Amino acid sequence: MEKKELLYEGKAKKVFTTDDPEVLIVSYKDDATAFNGLKKGTIEGKSAINNQMSNNLMKLLETKGVPTHLIEELNERETAVRRVSIVPLEVIVRNVAAGSLSKRLGLPEGTMMKRTVLEYCYKNDDLGDPMVNEYHIYAMDLATEQELADIAKMAFTVNDVLRNYLKDLNIDLIDFKIEFGRTSDGTVILADEISPDTCRFWDSSTGEKLDKDRFRRDMGGVEDAYQEVFKRLMGH
Amino acid sequence: MEKKELLYEGKAKKVFTTDDPEVLIVSYKDDATAFNGLKKGTIEGKSAINNQMSNNLMKLLETKGVPTHLIEELNERETAVRRVSIVPLEVIVRNVAAGSLSKRLGLPEGTMMKRTVLEYCYKNDDLGDPMVNEYHIYAMDLATEQELADIAKMAFTVNDVLRNYLKDLNIDLIDFKIEFGRTSDGTVILADEISPDTCRFWDSSTGEKLDKDRFRRDMGGVEDAYQEVFKRLMGH
Ligand SMILES: Nc1ncnc2c1ncn2[C@@H]1O[C@H](COP(=O)(O)OP(=O)(O)OP(=O)(O)O)[C@@H](O)[C@H]1O
Ligand SMILES: Nc1ncnc2c1ncn2[C@@H]1O[C@H](COP(=O)(O)OP(=O)(O)OP(=O)(O)O)[C@@H](O)[C@H]1O
Ligand SMILES: [Mg+2]
Ligand SMILES: [Mg+2]
Repeated sequence: MEKKELLYEGKAKKVFTTDDPEVLIVSYKDDATAFNGLKKGTIEGKSAINNQMSNNLMKLLETKGVPTHLIEELNERETAVRRVSIVPLEVIVRNVAAGSLSKRLGLPEGTMMKRTVLEYCYKNDDLGDPMVNEYHIYAMDLATEQELADIAKMAFTVNDVLRNYLKDLNIDLIDFKIEFGRTSDGTVILADEISPDTCRFWDSSTGEKLDKDRFRRDMGGVEDAYQEVFKRLMGH
Repeated sequence: MEKKELLYEGKAKKVFTTDDPEVLIVSYKDDATAFNGLKKGTIEGKSAINNQMSNNLMKLLETKGVPTHLIEELNERETAVRRVSIVPLEVIVRNVAAGSLSKRLGLPEGTMMKRTVLEYCYKNDDLGDPMVNEYHIYAMDLATEQELADIAKMAFTVNDVLRNYLKDLNIDLIDFKIEFGRTSDGTVILADEISPDTCRFWDSSTGEKLDKDRFRRDMGGVEDAYQEVFKRLMGH
């Protein structure tokens, strides 16, 4: 499998075409950004960790009935994936209040949500990824009712599977953001990545943050946190 | 019916208790505010217009099966209403993009929504009335699933009824905000007010704004706009 053209360079990954129009190669970067690109930096070793972690979690999810874009890990940093047309929604699942939710709704970080919260944000950097509800999504033709029903169901399954899996590694899954895409036949599958860049992981015993919040909030120990999660996942 | 104690003084109305614990008297003010109280002013004659307009529209809604807090108009500015415990949600219905929706989602003002949009904001001045979805509402215990289903159904009925009614007065109903409350027996009914303070009304022929946006945006002709809508409604 060979990279042909650079299709897209994002903040965390490069995406290349291949000879097969249905297959892309994703190449992870050590670059880190936060606050819609306002804060920039590097997290050494992140590319290899996020690539392998994301692949391992997607493999697990496949066994639980969630279709994903994963085809094959090519090397430490690169993976062949099914090409999809990304549904322009950030799909967020929250078990515990943190980050933007805490600020917006006045719920202290760490407040257990009485019910698992599902949120959608319209993926649009110029608008700052505003939160939308189902009515906005249909009015703007971002997804159909059937697609959104499938997405919601898969998002809750992802949450159940990852939460249980991580619990055994002494990690609490606080919240996460996932993206879905449409394959050429219109099926909606899980795409993008699942990593400490896109999840909040808290050590179950100490509450220590093991994710990108250490970078966002200048807490130090960023690389160590990524390594720690990776070690627990891979040692499993 | 006599006013006893001032129970609450809001930005647009005073609310008084009466001898009957189930009955309140709402007294409308000419005061106008915008942007969560940042902008302050007076709209002469507004109190009488909003009081009578709101009562007339609620009377109409009652005939269409929407229960409201309206008991009896006492005078130009004052009305006896059923006391409710307000559900802390601003329930917003949008037919055409305008105001905060246009800004947040990048839809030019006047864009017809492909589907009627229903939005909820958590009534909390300190937080700036943030938008919430059903999951937030359940997680924060703001309303039960049954209550929210009732509220959504009533909100769409209010939209259908008012839209048709106003169309005959050559007024387009762009969007509106309503509030619901629980009576002592737990029934959810329409409360608060329906007026040019809480709706966007555009003249169907000219597109002229006939609502509080003239005040918010310093467009002039504020009193005239309120009078014009009132005249069309009352002449009907
Ligand atoms: N299987 C896939 N097929 C096509 N595109 C994908 C696939 N998986 C992920 N993508 C997209 O590739 C890009 C990955 O790059 P990266 O995560 O660095 O983007 P980003 O900087 O977060 O920007 P964006 O706002 O577009 O998500 C994203 O736009 C993502 O939606
Ligand atoms: N039937 C009712 N029973 C009890 N309270 C009511 C009823 N109808 C309206 N209210 C409440 O009375 C107050 C009316 O005052 P006003 O509209 O001036 O408030 P406001 O300044 O908009 O503030 P708020 O943020 O509380 O709505 C509001 O809090 C409203 O929710
Ligand atoms: Mg990304
Ligand atoms: Mg009010």
